[in-house]
Amino acid sequence: MIDFIFEIWFVTLAGIIALIFAGLLSLWLLRQPKGRERVSDLSDRIYRGAMTFLNREYKPLVVFVIIVAVILYVTEIHDEAVIAFVSGAFCSALAGNIGMRIATKSNARAAVGAREEIGKGLKIGFSSGAVMGMTVVGLALIGLSAISHWLWTEPGKLAEVIVGFGFGASSIAIFARVAGGIYTKSADMGADLVGKVEEKIPEDDPRNPAVIADNVGDNVGDVAGMGADLFESYAGSIISAITIGAAIVTAESVSGGVIPNMEPIKAISPDLVKAGKDLLLYPLFLAAFGLFSSMIGIAFVRPKEDADIGSLHNTLNRGVFGSAAVMGIFGYVITDQLFVNIEPFYAMITGLAAGIAIGLASEYFTESRFKPTRSIAEASQTGPATNIIGGFSVGLASTLIPVVAVCVAIGLSYHVVGLYGIPIAAVGMLSTLGITLATDTYGPVNDNAAGIAEMGEMGSEVRTRAEKLDAVGNTTAAIGKGFAIGSAALTSVSLFSAYIAKVGVGVSQLSVAMPEVMIGLLIGGLLTFVFSALTMSAVGRGASSIVKEVRRQFEQIPGLLEGEAEPESEKCVAISTNTALKNMIIPGGLAVVTPVLVGLWSAQALGGLLAGAIVTGLLMAITLANAGGAWDNAKKYIEEGNLGGKGSDAHAAAVTGDTVGDPFKDTSGPSLNILIKLMAMISLLFVPLF
Amino acid sequence: MIDFIFEIWFVTLAGIIALIFAGLLSLWLLRQPKGRERVSDLSDRIYRGAMTFLNREYKPLVVFVIIVAVILYVTEIHDEAVIAFVSGAFCSALAGNIGMRIATKSNARAAVGAREEIGKGLKIGFSSGAVMGMTVVGLALIGLSAISHWLWTEPGKLAEVIVGFGFGASSIAIFARVAGGIYTKSADMGADLVGKVEEKIPEDDPRNPAVIADNVGDNVGDVAGMGADLFESYAGSIISAITIGAAIVTAESVSGGVIPNMEPIKAISPDLVKAGKDLLLYPLFLAAFGLFSSMIGIAFVRPKEDADIGSLHNTLNRGVFGSAAVMGIFGYVITDQLFVNIEPFYAMITGLAAGIAIGLASEYFTESRFKPTRSIAEASQTGPATNIIGGFSVGLASTLIPVVAVCVAIGLSYHVVGLYGIPIAAVGMLSTLGITLATDTYGPVNDNAAGIAEMGEMGSEVRTRAEKLDAVGNTTAAIGKGFAIGSAALTSVSLFSAYIAKVGVGVSQLSVAMPEVMIGLLIGGLLTFVFSALTMSAVGRGASSIVKEVRRQFEQIPGLLEGEAEPESEKCVAISTNTALKNMIIPGGLAVVTPVLVGLWSAQALGGLLAGAIVTGLLMAITLANAGGAWDNAKKYIEEGNLGGKGSDAHAAAVTGDTVGDPFKDTSGPSLNILIKLMAMISLLFVPLF
Repeated sequence: MIDFIFEIWFVTLAGIIALIFAGLLSLWLLRQPKGRERVSDLSDRIYRGAMTFLNREYKPLVVFVIIVAVILYVTEIHDEAVIAFVSGAFCSALAGNIGMRIATKSNARAAVGAREEIGKGLKIGFSSGAVMGMTVVGLALIGLSAISHWLWTEPGKLAEVIVGFGFGASSIAIFARVAGGIYTKSADMGADLVGKVEEKIPEDDPRNPAVIADNVGDNVGDVAGMGADLFESYAGSIISAITIGAAIVTAESVSGGVIPNMEPIKAISPDLVKAGKDLLLYPLFLAAFGLFSSMIGIAFVRPKEDADIGSLHNTLNRGVFGSAAVMGIFGYVITDQLFVNIEPFYAMITGLAAGIAIGLASEYFTESRFKPTRSIAEASQTGPATNIIGGFSVGLASTLIPVVAVCVAIGLSYHVVGLYGIPIAAVGMLSTLGITLATDTYGPVNDNAAGIAEMGEMGSEVRTRAEKLDAVGNTTAAIGKGFAIGSAALTSVSLFSAYIAKVGVGVSQLSVAMPEVMIGLLIGGLLTFVFSALTMSAVGRGASSIVKEVRRQFEQIPGLLEGEAEPESEKCVAISTNTALKNMIIPGGLAVVTPVLVGLWSAQALGGLLAGAIVTGLLMAITLANAGGAWDNAKKYIEEGNLGGKGSDAHAAAVTGDTVGDPFKDTSGPSLNILIKLMAMISLLFVPLF
Repeated sequence: MIDFIFEIWFVTLAGIIALIFAGLLSLWLLRQPKGRERVSDLSDRIYRGAMTFLNREYKPLVVFVIIVAVILYVTEIHDEAVIAFVSGAFCSALAGNIGMRIATKSNARAAVGAREEIGKGLKIGFSSGAVMGMTVVGLALIGLSAISHWLWTEPGKLAEVIVGFGFGASSIAIFARVAGGIYTKSADMGADLVGKVEEKIPEDDPRNPAVIADNVGDNVGDVAGMGADLFESYAGSIISAITIGAAIVTAESVSGGVIPNMEPIKAISPDLVKAGKDLLLYPLFLAAFGLFSSMIGIAFVRPKEDADIGSLHNTLNRGVFGSAAVMGIFGYVITDQLFVNIEPFYAMITGLAAGIAIGLASEYFTESRFKPTRSIAEASQTGPATNIIGGFSVGLASTLIPVVAVCVAIGLSYHVVGLYGIPIAAVGMLSTLGITLATDTYGPVNDNAAGIAEMGEMGSEVRTRAEKLDAVGNTTAAIGKGFAIGSAALTSVSLFSAYIAKVGVGVSQLSVAMPEVMIGLLIGGLLTFVFSALTMSAVGRGASSIVKEVRRQFEQIPGLLEGEAEPESEKCVAISTNTALKNMIIPGGLAVVTPVLVGLWSAQALGGLLAGAIVTGLLMAITLANAGGAWDNAKKYIEEGNLGGKGSDAHAAAVTGDTVGDPFKDTSGPSLNILIKLMAMISLLFVPLF
């Protein structure tokens, strides 16, 4: 191996390459035909709605970032952390902005592409996702490597400052995820409740005034929200590895790598203590080579032109598994070159494998090919109540494999390397984020494409193709959600480990036997439940405002239901935007303020709080995501003509489950990912205060 | 004060007095008129159904008890623990058996009483509940005081053996709660889904073949299940106080009350170390005087003869709050007499106050007088999906007050006395169990009475009165559930503290920073989710078997729907019984086996498992119980004529929520109480193995 690739600036270079790659893909996308006026006009309206939302969202965010920056400056934690904080917030917001611009520019193009060939539709949707994936990865690596360069000579200080970057990213993420989730599901539920249920008009019917808002929602929730979420996980996993690595390096000179107060926890296997600062470089290199693996995987995604659903799905899977395999090889080589022994590689592999296991488990629990979702469809035959109970049970049961996978990853990675192994497992899981995020973002883009095909009256064949692409997108979205949750959990545990390594109270003080810790555990768990209640009830209220507005329009606009008048879509867009922005403040604030207050009372209770939030947050997020996905696909299964098909009582029951699942899977569930990471990040940053 | 009351045999005497009190009440109840043939025949059928279930349930339980007894004997933990284990199982089963016999003998009598005067109906229902309450408390005190007598000279051994009694009670409780919960809701949901929803016949209509099973279910679930649950909490709180007390006494001679491996946890305030064995007597005395307080409270319950709902409710509240106030005074005197300082009294009061706070919070979240339940009723206007989302959010949000109350009780009781304070708080909360359990059991008895009034065609006025009594019972049941959950949580934390005091790994090994502990936390949380999934899906399957059977009878029995033929009720009773017994094995087994397996792997992971299960179990149990209660009352609110009343779309939506809430509040939620206590108890018992 050539030595220069083991320099930090090589990591920066990798980030720049990712951005160039994203830029070239964007140019290609923008060259694709946008369709005739009606079609491109729909896309423009979605684009405008999405950008209006983002621009309005930025205002409170800028205020928040300034306030926090001032607090950071005043509390004198580290002046440099202020710069890192602002950079993290900026990079996260920029990645979301770019990703969403491209997604909203690609939706009509994907529909037009699907008219040509179904494979073309997939390619456009997927490429637009790849822009998002590469932008997130690229900006994160540039930001993190720049800070590492800057403070390379002082590892202790580097570790403290770089957390600021993660906290910046978290701050954007919590508001983006919560607001995006509330927006998308208020609009979606509102549109369905009046359109599909009351007026019996089809999904995405252009007469429905809430349809544009619904399509905007797919972008602000599933594109911008998901992007910010994974930007945070990605940065967080690397930051926690650097933090623990720095603690080991600092302790090495003093006590041979034994971190003070950390007994009886093994920070790292003794052979690796001598690796010194290479412990800090390692996660950055893994990420950089993960980025190249993702590019290779993206190149694997070459859909056949007349593909069916199964083959489209395989095409995407080939990319994801291909890049994981390539990353396995890269990971071995990097580890072998950097360290005297190969154990850290095993830690990385446990994370990579856990990510795949969680994705496959989500697939099993949410696809109608398998028993769980079938059982929900069958339970729909005895009405909505049994459908709900069936779906909720499936969601609860679906926690088994992901939690065991996370436990195995934690246990094995700690066993082989020590505490340092846990963030390395997280970095491994997230290393191929470039392509996994591309397959996630593909979902909402093709969902939009299907909507535009319907609204733009592009004909039934295009609609059918778009719906096939959408169905593939539903599965990739479910897997993506599982992956987002798994990575959030592993990242949080890593950040938590980093918190432990930095906080001065001593390991024994964090015993679950201490009443303060038990109280902390209870409060941490409580936070996830209350947070879910807040986000879920916000969607309920938002949807009911939309319902009232749509009912009003159907009553007061003559000719609307007959298709002779245009709906006032922008009113629904405004309602969703306002509901989302108003209701993001309390949950977001709760996530930021509670850990600081608890920490000021007792650092022990804060340790408990983080652990409690991770445990219940992980369980609740999986339950909500998989119950929602399974309800959705149980409904689709009935719509395919099974158990009575569309219009049957079973179908009506399944629609209820699908609607209940909306805020479960797209609002409350995903928001929990950020909650647990953000609280760990903020605790880590404010350690000097406690 | 006279000295003799501070002897253990006085506690035994108090237990005997409780049984005599229960016996006298029973004689009075059995002297009340049973009604004409049709009415008394219905009551007999419910009685026979309930006894058949109990007798069939005993067979696998006896096998289980024998197997565990053999394992306990072979592992040589303590031969005496085998005797204690069998006694605990026997006392719990006996208390459930007596309580259920009296409840099923009182239902028709309560209906007949209500025909005379509404106050008479309340008196009969409440007295039958008081029999249950006094039997549970009496048998527990006799058992616990007998073991204490027996091993009084060896506190260390006493502590180890007495856990066997608790484990015996837990073993009965887990199967009774799970099987009872599955039975009652399979029958209830099945009866409603075909009767109310498909055939549009009223609740408790005698033509419905599942109605007898539904009424049997109220007894096996809400009477026998609840009784076993609280028997376990009651015994568990006293046992954990004795265990921690014994550890302090044993350590006193060696190290002045500092328990080995317990640093930095404060076991007890230094002044109290000298109290010696009085630390073991104290919880028993509190319980004995709590029993007298309950008797006084029961005497307060004198309903006016022509009372309305509000005044009936106040009558019950007067009893509960009255006995809490009396207990406050008794508690002060006992503490003052026994100890040099009064701090333990404060610990007891925090528990008593937390119990009341949790009960009032349940009332706020589940009664239609207040905003949360109203908001669910309003959400029903936009269909079942918004009703479900509304109810689930209310359930999630309702965790706030109970969890804070538990945290405050843990924090304050530890602050004033040390670790010993936590079980004292639990004992305080449960001290007036005699009357709180009476108000709980009152609910199902009057629910049965309302059913019998309908089925027995006793006329609309009796039915109306019975329904009023039932409505009061719904509220007391919701409060009772909250109380059961709160006491389960506090008891589990106490048992967990006792586990910590006994396990040899040392406090620092139980740090949440240890990966084993984090894995344990995750597995503990996971167990509560998987356990809920198992119990909930069992109800779904059971209900759908009932639906099929009832549909078959309506089709194949000529004249059934016209009221000219009798339904084959016993078939539905058999289906519920079989479903319940078959589906109790896996969740029950999981609860017993998992902690032992995890403990054999790592005592640290087991510590984490217990803490994780307590935290998520408490949160989930509150969510499920209050969501279920709120859905139920939102439906009743609409049925009172609000928002369109019966027959409106809002009503149909609310019925869906009510049905979903059935297994939430009466199966999965309550079963979690036992899960967390049982796992703590089994860990404590098997400590020598780990």
